[in-house]
Amino acid sequence: MFNIIALENGLENVQGFYCGATNVGMRPDQTQGDVAFIRSDVPCDISAVFTSNTFQAAPIKHFQKYPKDFQTDFVLINAKNANAMTGEKGVEDIETILSVLASKQKVLNPLMSSTGVIGYRLPIEKVTSAFDTLDFHSKNSEETARAIMTTDSFKKELSYKVELEDGTSFTIAAICKGAGMINPAMATMLCFITTDADIPKADMDALLTDATEHSFNRISVDGDTSTNDTVMLLANKSSGHYNKEAFAEVLNKLMFELAMMILRDGEGANKLVAFEVKGATTLEEAKTASMALSNSLLVKTALFGEDPNWGRIASTIGASGIACDEKRLTIHYDDLLIYSDTFRELDKAREAKAYAIMKKESFKVTCDIGLGKASYISYGCDLSYEYVKINAEYRT
Amino acid sequence: MFNIIALENGLENVQGFYCGATNVGMRPDQTQGDVAFIRSDVPCDISAVFTSNTFQAAPIKHFQKYPKDFQTDFVLINAKNANAMTGEKGVEDIETILSVLASKQKVLNPLMSSTGVIGYRLPIEKVTSAFDTLDFHSKNSEETARAIMTTDSFKKELSYKVELEDGTSFTIAAICKGAGMINPAMATMLCFITTDADIPKADMDALLTDATEHSFNRISVDGDTSTNDTVMLLANKSSGHYNKEAFAEVLNKLMFELAMMILRDGEGANKLVAFEVKGATTLEEAKTASMALSNSLLVKTALFGEDPNWGRIASTIGASGIACDEKRLTIHYDDLLIYSDTFRELDKAREAKAYAIMKKESFKVTCDIGLGKASYISYGCDLSYEYVKINAEYRT
Repeated sequence: MFNIIALENGLENVQGFYCGATNVGMRPDQTQGDVAFIRSDVPCDISAVFTSNTFQAAPIKHFQKYPKDFQTDFVLINAKNANAMTGEKGVEDIETILSVLASKQKVLNPLMSSTGVIGYRLPIEKVTSAFDTLDFHSKNSEETARAIMTTDSFKKELSYKVELEDGTSFTIAAICKGAGMINPAMATMLCFITTDADIPKADMDALLTDATEHSFNRISVDGDTSTNDTVMLLANKSSGHYNKEAFAEVLNKLMFELAMMILRDGEGANKLVAFEVKGATTLEEAKTASMALSNSLLVKTALFGEDPNWGRIASTIGASGIACDEKRLTIHYDDLLIYSDTFRELDKAREAKAYAIMKKESFKVTCDIGLGKASYISYGCDLSYEYVKINAEYRT
Repeated sequence: MFNIIALENGLENVQGFYCGATNVGMRPDQTQGDVAFIRSDVPCDISAVFTSNTFQAAPIKHFQKYPKDFQTDFVLINAKNANAMTGEKGVEDIETILSVLASKQKVLNPLMSSTGVIGYRLPIEKVTSAFDTLDFHSKNSEETARAIMTTDSFKKELSYKVELEDGTSFTIAAICKGAGMINPAMATMLCFITTDADIPKADMDALLTDATEHSFNRISVDGDTSTNDTVMLLANKSSGHYNKEAFAEVLNKLMFELAMMILRDGEGANKLVAFEVKGATTLEEAKTASMALSNSLLVKTALFGEDPNWGRIASTIGASGIACDEKRLTIHYDDLLIYSDTFRELDKAREAKAYAIMKKESFKVTCDIGLGKASYISYGCDLSYEYVKINAEYRT
């Protein structure tokens, strides 16, 4: 038995962690930071999950140069420049920046993480100028969360306290960014999770992988997978307390909620839709069909148009290549049966109900393939004019 | 040696074929037909390629009920209703309609083909009322081409005469529709090709499959694959003449040009871009990466924004899962080198050239993976506000 209590704000709730941000001139809006840090006063164990994109950005390559199971106490984060497709120079730039950091602040195996435009070298002097203005003893989670935003329209931070049965407790918190280029197999997103739980390293790796699979890997804004996606879990063990079941639950809850925040902030998106495919022959097939629905342009534009056009849902299932049979298939919008073999055309009353569901900010589409027992759920959003505008004008 | 000569107009140029259309009230605009026919005065051999969507529409199921290598002399086509996801009733409706036809006009193994909204039964009385107004001896290709349009903004018809070395000749012509839901593995498109060439049935099947692979299967507007896609080749042999090499060349030319017409008419699209991936390890990988580029929302919106953001090209290649290495990769826009390991950042002069290329109506992106010898080319278009508008409002 344990209680999970939501806390106000974010990273500042976790013992021994510090964070803050500054603007070094990479982001034109001076009121928002572009370089941020997260620091622990004792070394942390670290688990990380990175993008499946073959062209991993320089910060990910730099991370991988450390020995297995290394500890760290510092993560430097910048916006506006992804430091991706920058080759060996990109990794060297990180080493240069972090050596300047080390000359000003005692750090253990410092890390870097970046988001922004692909294909440009980091402006080293600008980035290192941050070390003159950052206060390494600040605890300003909001400022940090805002500094890592790109096309995000709101900051994303969450924090929970877990009270265990024996009266002890630990905390966990996270900041996260992401709004576009979001696809299963990770979004263009960065997520930094800090905890003072006394969690063993082996549990960190297993629980982070599992929670990623159930959260960030199930959302899609546009079917693209970035070069920089990163989820990091930093554990400094400062509370001295831990319970695996409780930690798994709070980590899943935290990461799922962050994933839904990203989806709600999907570029130009107005609706959050869960696509459940059940009754599939295999889990792989359920996943394939569910992801096909989340990613279909025709489904996404029908959502934007609030058109209960189930034909596009059915066609997408059929085009996904999974085993299916139109006589076995059923489609529901929330609890409303909208297609089955014996019920193909909508009467007026049902069509009115379907239109009402389509107008909701959030609803569920359930496709029962009717052939097996495997199911999978993914989460998508609509595609609006605004998405096109944001992505056509991204660099300008 | 042979000459290929472009002819004015379309199907009317082919000996022994008749075509026309009428409006039976399914399409609100009475000046455009919604039911059309193509007829030959002698039985035709027929080859057809259908959608890869598992949920094949009723007309495709009906086609497949005929014995192998059947001959036909009549194809009935309707717009506004796809007769898809309509179950056995959908096939029965076709049989009903065609039996009414047979009571009014002598036909051999008549076929039907449909395009429009998924999930509604055909209005049998409306469709059969066409038989009272259609003139089965008309040769009005333009009217026929216009009757099968859905979101198309222009009619698509082409016709060629092939003059052989011995002074004999044959003709080939086609009408085609398609503008959205266009994806490799066939578009939401219907294409009817007629020829009076004396082509053996075995050549028809082989050449049609090959030409489809090099035309309609290489274009993508939105990554969706419809339930109704159909390419039909009808050969009535009336000219008595044939040359395999010449026929293959003209068929490929005709189908490629039609595919490019569909892409230029891609819903809301303003640009036609060829994505060549070469130097891949296998053909399958070259195809995967090329298709990923044609289908990427981020690439498509960058094209619309005329932004030479090669980072999105590179990221899409990396996300496609093929074997690749950023040190080996090069990217060209037309002949302009825009990325290589030793040439990562654009100088002003090159950026200006890149912007100029992006403003063109048509250009080529070439990604050389640098690892092997396989190459593949596919064709895509930009994604505009107009695409979202068309597809959000499709049914209303």
